[in-house]
Amino acid sequence: MNKEKFMRRAIELSIENVKNGGGPFGAVIVKNNEILAEAVNSVTTTNDPTAHAEINAIRLASKKINHFDLKGCDIYSSCEPCPMCLSAIYWARIEKLYFGNTKNNAKDIGFDDAHIYNEIKLHYSKRSLITQQVLNNEALEAFKLWDNYSEKIKY
Amino acid sequence: MNKEKFMRRAIELSIENVKNGGGPFGAVIVKNNEILAEAVNSVTTTNDPTAHAEINAIRLASKKINHFDLKGCDIYSSCEPCPMCLSAIYWARIEKLYFGNTKNNAKDIGFDDAHIYNEIKLHYSKRSLITQQVLNNEALEAFKLWDNYSEKIKY
Repeated sequence: MNKEKFMRRAIELSIENVKNGGGPFGAVIVKNNEILAEAVNSVTTTNDPTAHAEINAIRLASKKINHFDLKGCDIYSSCEPCPMCLSAIYWARIEKLYFGNTKNNAKDIGFDDAHIYNEIKLHYSKRSLITQQVLNNEALEAFKLWDNYSEKIKY
Repeated sequence: MNKEKFMRRAIELSIENVKNGGGPFGAVIVKNNEILAEAVNSVTTTNDPTAHAEINAIRLASKKINHFDLKGCDIYSSCEPCPMCLSAIYWARIEKLYFGNTKNNAKDIGFDDAHIYNEIKLHYSKRSLITQQVLNNEALEAFKLWDNYSEKIKY
């Protein structure tokens, strides 16, 4: 089956990446039954904390089609996405998500996305991340400008 | 006050970005009371759905210090972060978050992060994003390899 074929490629990438010194994660983006982009986690190899496999694959796929909207694309991730990657999948308007390992499998080897999933649910005053609002009135100026700007590109 | 100074810079970036055709968002990362990196939202200008101001600022800051861990850094965002950016802030181990506009302010001008915040809370079987697990046993091979790999760089 095709979905197993694409997942096997994501898994293969995740295994290769461990051998190359990276994290055990790979992702493949598929459009019209063909691979549009594939990527591995490169957090430690490129010193970029946002460089999870899914984020890297989305950035690559968008670049390839020259658009920020990946409508009609599916993503195959070797592991259930963390909240950063899951949110990116929504922003990119990807249609289907297939994953191999679960969050709990990831937790078992030391990747604890659960902490972030838990924090996100809380009001900012309750989070472990110290958070404070400042200068709301001044910040609103940009929003008013955007709201009145007739040529804006919505996304 | 310094926190107002840094927030004013984030706001200034957000206003400039609207004038340059981008989304109304700016972010500044501060270390040792100095700006380490600053960025704007470039989703539509670079065709990258992950290129929110905070993600761009984190990527730039990590590149500058040549490390994926932004311990000791604070982030000033002109708007309360979406769940993608909030998660990235956790992954980057940023210490404090200051924001100007709220999520509700963003919603009022058409940026509805609330949908993603709501989806994240749900089990994957309940989300609007169609999600399916495949080949768990095969995917676990990468995790076993990682778990047994003595030279791995944890993050």
